[in-house]
Amino acid sequence: MSNSEQTKKIADVIIGLEKAALDRWYKGDPDGYLEIYDEEDLSYFDPPKDKRLDGYSNVKAFYDSIKGLVHSEKYEILNPLVQVLTDTSATLSYNLVAYVGNDINNWNLSSVFKLNKNNQWKIIHTHWSFVRPMDISFEKNKDII
Amino acid sequence: MSNSEQTKKIADVIIGLEKAALDRWYKGDPDGYLEIYDEEDLSYFDPPKDKRLDGYSNVKAFYDSIKGLVHSEKYEILNPLVQVLTDTSATLSYNLVAYVGNDINNWNLSSVFKLNKNNQWKIIHTHWSFVRPMDISFEKNKDII
Repeated sequence: MSNSEQTKKIADVIIGLEKAALDRWYKGDPDGYLEIYDEEDLSYFDPPKDKRLDGYSNVKAFYDSIKGLVHSEKYEILNPLVQVLTDTSATLSYNLVAYVGNDINNWNLSSVFKLNKNNQWKIIHTHWSFVRPMDISFEKNKDII
Repeated sequence: MSNSEQTKKIADVIIGLEKAALDRWYKGDPDGYLEIYDEEDLSYFDPPKDKRLDGYSNVKAFYDSIKGLVHSEKYEILNPLVQVLTDTSATLSYNLVAYVGNDINNWNLSSVFKLNKNNQWKIIHTHWSFVRPMDISFEKNKDII
């Protein structure tokens, strides 16, 4: 395969894994993500948490605590981008719009993937954040714009 | 070198690059980051932006627009973690506390580094976000906790 064919193939696999996990996530099932998180090496940022979660067991405990709670029937991945670092490492990033109850949640999402010895792509780092959270209180945050 | 020595060496180099860029950042000089961003492949999330910035020139335009504006004399990198993917790819993540004017800014930061052909580590993806931005208006955001 050419370099660009290989890149396209990796991108397709990674976006497919992400979409499948996200579909389960918005049905209240976080286990789709737990299945693609690396059990040996994982770090994780999420807005509700006051610091980075390190280690699979800590992320699993958090996800187990929200099982059944997160639902959306309408959500969209915007501009997914896979940046291939090597044949065994790549970064995925996208914007996500999700309709949850009466709210529209706008997310920035980054995940770093590694191909393991069993030829499976696993996430070793994820970072979820809100798009423009200062819109919630723009005045209070004008110093940090 | 052993595997762990190589990992430690990569971690030291990457944390050193980040600290040097951050020191310049908080003196109002974003060029330290521009020098370690990959000119050929860069994507970037930051809370003030309503979507991902793609491409070095777009990030540079943003950074040029805030040159001289960001100052802090007291800031601290908490729990820096380098996850080495391969000999030429790694992820850095940490929490950052910065005193800016009368505010304390708490950040989550992720950056993905790639060793280029000139043996220089360059960032191809960065994600800045606020720690617990829902604290700004917890009530409004309780649905997404």
